[in-house]
Amino acid sequence: VAKRLEKFKTTIFTQMSMLAIKHGAINLGQGFPNFDGPDFVKEAAIQAINAGKNQYARGFGVPELNSAIAERFLKDSGLQVDPDKEVTVTSGCTEAIAATILGLINPGDEVILFAPFYDSYEATLSMAGANVKAITLRAPDFAVPLEELKAAVSKNTKAIMINTPHNPTGKMFTREELEFIATLCKENDVLLFSDEVYDKLAFEADHISMASLPGMYERTVTMNSLGKTFSLTGWKIGWAIAPPHLTWGLRQAHSFLTFATCTPMQAAAAAALRAPDSYYEELRRDYSAKKAILLEGLKSAGFIVHPSSGTYFIMVDHTPFGFDNDIEFCEYLIREVGVVAIPPSVFYLNPEEGKNLVRFTFCKDEDTLRAAVERMKTKL
Amino acid sequence: VAKRLEKFKTTIFTQMSMLAIKHGAINLGQGFPNFDGPDFVKEAAIQAINAGKNQYARGFGVPELNSAIAERFLKDSGLQVDPDKEVTVTSGCTEAIAATILGLINPGDEVILFAPFYDSYEATLSMAGANVKAITLRAPDFAVPLEELKAAVSKNTKAIMINTPHNPTGKMFTREELEFIATLCKENDVLLFSDEVYDKLAFEADHISMASLPGMYERTVTMNSLGKTFSLTGWKIGWAIAPPHLTWGLRQAHSFLTFATCTPMQAAAAAALRAPDSYYEELRRDYSAKKAILLEGLKSAGFIVHPSSGTYFIMVDHTPFGFDNDIEFCEYLIREVGVVAIPPSVFYLNPEEGKNLVRFTFCKDEDTLRAAVERMKTKL
Ligand SMILES: CSCCC(=O)C(=O)O
Ligand SMILES: CSCCC(=O)C(=O)O
Repeated sequence: VAKRLEKFKTTIFTQMSMLAIKHGAINLGQGFPNFDGPDFVKEAAIQAINAGKNQYARGFGVPELNSAIAERFLKDSGLQVDPDKEVTVTSGCTEAIAATILGLINPGDEVILFAPFYDSYEATLSMAGANVKAITLRAPDFAVPLEELKAAVSKNTKAIMINTPHNPTGKMFTREELEFIATLCKENDVLLFSDEVYDKLAFEADHISMASLPGMYERTVTMNSLGKTFSLTGWKIGWAIAPPHLTWGLRQAHSFLTFATCTPMQAAAAAALRAPDSYYEELRRDYSAKKAILLEGLKSAGFIVHPSSGTYFIMVDHTPFGFDNDIEFCEYLIREVGVVAIPPSVFYLNPEEGKNLVRFTFCKDEDTLRAAVERMKTKL
Repeated sequence: VAKRLEKFKTTIFTQMSMLAIKHGAINLGQGFPNFDGPDFVKEAAIQAINAGKNQYARGFGVPELNSAIAERFLKDSGLQVDPDKEVTVTSGCTEAIAATILGLINPGDEVILFAPFYDSYEATLSMAGANVKAITLRAPDFAVPLEELKAAVSKNTKAIMINTPHNPTGKMFTREELEFIATLCKENDVLLFSDEVYDKLAFEADHISMASLPGMYERTVTMNSLGKTFSLTGWKIGWAIAPPHLTWGLRQAHSFLTFATCTPMQAAAAAALRAPDSYYEELRRDYSAKKAILLEGLKSAGFIVHPSSGTYFIMVDHTPFGFDNDIEFCEYLIREVGVVAIPPSVFYLNPEEGKNLVRFTFCKDEDTLRAAVERMKTKL
């Protein structure tokens, strides 16, 4: 294995989903729904296949999808972008992240992450030879430590990467935090990479897109995907929106990482993104009900529960149960309780910082959530 | 744009396909069929979508596809591999190439390519910080210059990368050439990366998989894909087969480049790979007829035609028409003749070496091929 990837292990999502299958445990680990995506989107995919849309797509996306992404971005963030010059379709947001980092970051560039972070951020930065600094968001509220962040920015800082709503904590960056970060970026000529895949799962306040803050669009890459919002995580349609000079770099990497993304699924994604507002409202209503079940259940089972206002994840503190760390807690949870969760220490540069925490997802049908809660209440 | 990608341009395939659309020219450039894939494969995709196979696949592939790939590899090359430990499904062969290179090659490692080469090889090696050496395959027969190759191998050589049947020349590496390369690899402890996406388009001799040569499996990554063989280039299903120690490295990169590949298309790919032998025989029969039309047409139009025994490409010499180089020839061909081809100079480290050549594809229906030939015969 190349040095750039030596320190990384099989992703925790794969490990845990495989353990769930092996032990017949209820999987509240990896974030994929156990219910299906909407019929109108599946129908659109079937139509595209039948219509013979089965050959290479234009490398940066089929025109109808690039347009649909630009339209949705205008609606959501108020920004008008050129679908052909500023939108790039990728094979999931994971590829958008890889293309952004490999396309824009040079060896030795410093990039600031917020820990805990989705594991691909650090691994991809390592592939690019970047120096990673992490600012830790701490329980209970996972607020951005503003002065610590400011002190971390140096003249070698090339980019700051954020994720809002935030996986795995459920935190949403506040307007004040986003403005503080924006000011730092502008004062220090730093790029901003914004992973917004959970933008439609904002339960308490409206999602704010970093690119919409004054002066930020020109230095921001906004990444998103179809999977979370349309319960089709397996289709792997993602995208990156950025001004032409940044799009150029990330498209170069994209061209040579995957060249193009599955054509009929792109046609279906275009149909999906044109869903009426009522689709998104219903999605949020459904997820609010699921969230209430899991949140209440985790409290009664004895966890210390932290506030969470977005994503389909809840991160809680397992210390009341007396385990040394998150890995040991999760092993016990699988073997003795029959529930799979994600141990978040892998999402920190310093794993110690995550050892009291554990992440659960509520992107499962209500019966499954109730069954998992029941197991935890009786067996923990 | 990051330095690792600075010297690369928009891929020639994208440039040419966009010009084809703009000028309404017949596109014999990028290698995608203008006819559809087989109904039984499309049906399998539709069934998978309807059956709710729409969430994240296992990162390295859905079990049924990994098994189908292993079965086909056994049939084709006589090698028994473990579908869970030695097969990795990727988002097209382009991703298999990227994952192999980023997962196994360190900065400063030397990798030997044969020019002309598919453009992603050089770009991805540049992303990995490798030193690229190229050995040129020269017209008319594009034979491997054995002594030149031997002299190029040094103690810094980490890998040799081959592509057989070979895009863009149509050459198939002979058993003697493969054995010579295998011996070099074994004597110098060099890895072998083998892109075999055109293995089913071998018209004159049987395809030989490098991994099947004695002592080679343990040092070889074999890459392939669904698209060419099943006329579904837009589905982007590829894979890499390698012994566990190499699979580990390439899976690490794959995890963070795309994480997983489109689930329902993987299910359909498994059905495709279980096609009876007659499917492949008919494919070759169809393509032989198409090839004959184009070959004959290029000859009568006045090109100097080189022998080609595999792939759906033919590379010919345009010097009889008196243009300075391949770019100028291709521009004339688009504007004045109404046919798009690929100027191959971008597939060489030294573009001069490709300037007399031009690549045409015959993966188009016979009427289209006849129409293109007619235009070239009358307007060139
Ligand atoms: C490949 S898992 C992607 C992210 C997610 O769903 C999770 O964090 O569980
Ligand atoms: C992305 S184009 C892939 C290879 C091919 O089809 C070509 O060489 O034309």
